Amino acid sequence: MTQDRRFPVRLDLKQGTVDMSHGSGGRAMAQLIAELFHRHLDNALLAQGNDQALFSPPPGRMVMSTDGHVISPLFFPGGDIGSLAVHGTLNDVAMAGARPLYLAAAFILEEGFPLADLARIVASMASAANQACVPVVTGDTKVVERGKGDGVFITTTGVGVVPEGIHISGDLARPGDAILVSGHIGDHGVAILSKRENLGFETEIRSDSAALHGLVADMVTAVPEIHCLRDPTRGGLATTLNEIAHQSGVGMQIREEAIPVRPEVTAACELLGLDPLYVANEGKLIAICPGERAEDLLTAMRMHPRGEDAAIIGAVVEDELRFVQMETRFGGSRIVDWLAGEQLPRIC
Amino acid sequence: MTQDRRFPVRLDLKQGTVDMSHGSGGRAMAQLIAELFHRHLDNALLAQGNDQALFSPPPGRMVMSTDGHVISPLFFPGGDIGSLAVHGTLNDVAMAGARPLYLAAAFILEEGFPLADLARIVASMASAANQACVPVVTGDTKVVERGKGDGVFITTTGVGVVPEGIHISGDLARPGDAILVSGHIGDHGVAILSKRENLGFETEIRSDSAALHGLVADMVTAVPEIHCLRDPTRGGLATTLNEIAHQSGVGMQIREEAIPVRPEVTAACELLGLDPLYVANEGKLIAICPGERAEDLLTAMRMHPRGEDAAIIGAVVEDELRFVQMETRFGGSRIVDWLAGEQLPRIC
Repeated sequence: MTQDRRFPVRLDLKQGTVDMSHGSGGRAMAQLIAELFHRHLDNALLAQGNDQALFSPPPGRMVMSTDGHVISPLFFPGGDIGSLAVHGTLNDVAMAGARPLYLAAAFILEEGFPLADLARIVASMASAANQACVPVVTGDTKVVERGKGDGVFITTTGVGVVPEGIHISGDLARPGDAILVSGHIGDHGVAILSKRENLGFETEIRSDSAALHGLVADMVTAVPEIHCLRDPTRGGLATTLNEIAHQSGVGMQIREEAIPVRPEVTAACELLGLDPLYVANEGKLIAICPGERAEDLLTAMRMHPRGEDAAIIGAVVEDELRFVQMETRFGGSRIVDWLAGEQLPRIC
Repeated sequence: MTQDRRFPVRLDLKQGTVDMSHGSGGRAMAQLIAELFHRHLDNALLAQGNDQALFSPPPGRMVMSTDGHVISPLFFPGGDIGSLAVHGTLNDVAMAGARPLYLAAAFILEEGFPLADLARIVASMASAANQACVPVVTGDTKVVERGKGDGVFITTTGVGVVPEGIHISGDLARPGDAILVSGHIGDHGVAILSKRENLGFETEIRSDSAALHGLVADMVTAVPEIHCLRDPTRGGLATTLNEIAHQSGVGMQIREEAIPVRPEVTAACELLGLDPLYVANEGKLIAICPGERAEDLLTAMRMHPRGEDAAIIGAVVEDELRFVQMETRFGGSRIVDWLAGEQLPRIC
C-alpha cells in the first residue's frame, strides 16, 4: 500500500492516542478511518466510502436492531467490547428467527484513549464479523473530551431477513409451550465481575459471548413453529422470562434442577451474593415452542456447538398475573420476579 | 391509561434523575421505556416490544446509515440533540437518493441526568420523526456512572430504499459536472458556538437542522442523473467537497461569490476567527450533476422550502491532484484544503 498523499505521516498505532481532531470530520478523522477502521473492517460496501452503505437485500420481511455497548472493563476473559458489539447485535437480529445481513457501527471515543487499544478492539470486531459472515458496512466516529466518556462506547445496528413461514415474537408464548435454554447460564456476568473485582477464581470463567444465528438457523429449520426466542442478556434468564410472560399474558413454571449452571458459576455467585438467574449471558438463548415439538427442538439444538448443553427447563402456563414460578431444588416453589435495582452495572 | 402492575409508583418526570437501575435490563428500565420512550415515540413497530423491529420493505436496493450524536450543549437555538439525531441520520440516508423508512435509536445516559430533560429530548425526537413520517421502531438504553458520559449521547441508524434508476455516490463526480448547494452555509455551527460561548449576537442565528429527504425526493424526480449528494456536516462545505474530489479523482473550481452565507454568519465567523466554509451544517446538501442539467436541478431545488436559497457554486474539473480551488471575491484563487485539526468540537 502506498501512502495516501493526504496523510504525509502515518498514524502512530503504538504510542498515539485519540485526540479531538479525530472527530472533526476533517483530515485527521479521514486518516483514522482509512488507517484503522477500513484496514481492519475491509469490505466492498464499506469501501464505497459514502455516509451510507448501499445493498440489495433478498426479498422478504426484515428486522432491524440496535444496541449500545458500554461494558467495563473493555477487555475481559472470552472477548472485548469489539467482539461483544458484534455478537450482541447479531443475536438481537437472530432472535426474530432472522438471518443477519449487515452491521453498522458508531464509535464514541474519549480523548486520550490509546490508539493501540482501539486497533485491538476494531481487529476483534472484524474477526467476529468475519466469523459470522456479516460485514460492518457503514460507521461513524465521534470524539468527546477527556472525562466526558469512558474510553470507547460502540453502538452497533444490524439488519436481517426473516425466512418465510417463521413468526417469532415475545407475545406468542401459549400455555402448553415448552421453555428451553441453549446452555449454561451466568458465564458472561461472572467473567466480567471476576475481572472487574480481581477476585482471582481458581478456574477462570470466560464470557460466553458468541454469535447465535447459526444455531437459530438450525432451530427454525428443524422446528419452524418456534413461538419465542430471546437472548437473556442484562437481567438474566429471570428477567427475560418475565418479559415474555408479560408480553404474552401468560405464566411460566420452571424447574431449578433443569437449568444448566456451571459449578464454578454457582460457586462464584455464592461468593458474590448473586443469583445466577439474574446474571447476564451473551451467547445463550431462550426458546419457547409448542410442547409436542420440544424434544425435536432440543435434539436440533444439541447438535449445534452453541447448543450442546441445551435443556428443557419448564413450561408456559395460564396465569393472568403473569408470574414466573420456580420449583426449587428442595421441592419448594418460589416466584422469580423481575430484576429490581441494578445488580451488575455496565455488563454489556 | 391504567397503571401497569409492574410499576406501583410512576416515574417522577419532574424531579427524577437517571440512575444506574435504568440501564439494568430489569424493572426500572422497563418502566423508563414504557413511561418515557414508548409514550413519546409510540408506533406499531416499536410496540411489538421485542429486541428488534420487524417490517416488510418495498422491493429494491436499500441503504443503511448510522451516526452518533454527542453535541454540546444538548439544547440550542433551532433544535436539540433529539431532533438533530433524527435529522442527521435521515439526511445520511437521503444522500443516496433514498427514501428513509425506519430509524433505530440507542441512548447512552449519564447517571444523574434529569428525567425532565430526557423527556424533552425524546419528545423533540418524536416530533422530528413524525414530521418526517419516519418512525423510530427500535431502541436501546444504557446508563454509565456519573463522570463517565456527558448527559446523553444518541446513536441513530436509518434504513431506506433507493428508487430505481437512481445511482448516487461520492465517486461519480465527473469533469463538466456542476456543483450546487441547497442554501446558506454555516448556520448550525455558528448557532451552537454562540450558545456555547454565550457570545450574545444581536441577531440570534438558529441551527438549520432539518430533514432533507423531501427536497431530495423532488430533486431526483426532476433530475434522476444526479451524480453525488452529500450533507456538509462536520468539516463543512470545504471538507465535503474535498471528500468527493478525493473519491471521484477529480478537481473542483468554486466561486466564493456564489456561495450563500448569511451576513450574520459572516460577521460571527469574523468575530470568532472561523471560516464559514469549514463550519458544520445540518440542513443543507451539496449536489453534483451533469452541467447541462444544473439549471433544471436548481429550479427544482428552489421550489422546495429547504432549497429556496439554492445556488450553483462551481464545477468539477480534471485534476489528478484532486484540489478544490476557489476564485475569491477579489478575483484571486486559493486552494480550499481539508479541515486540519479540530475547529468546533462536538458540533453534532
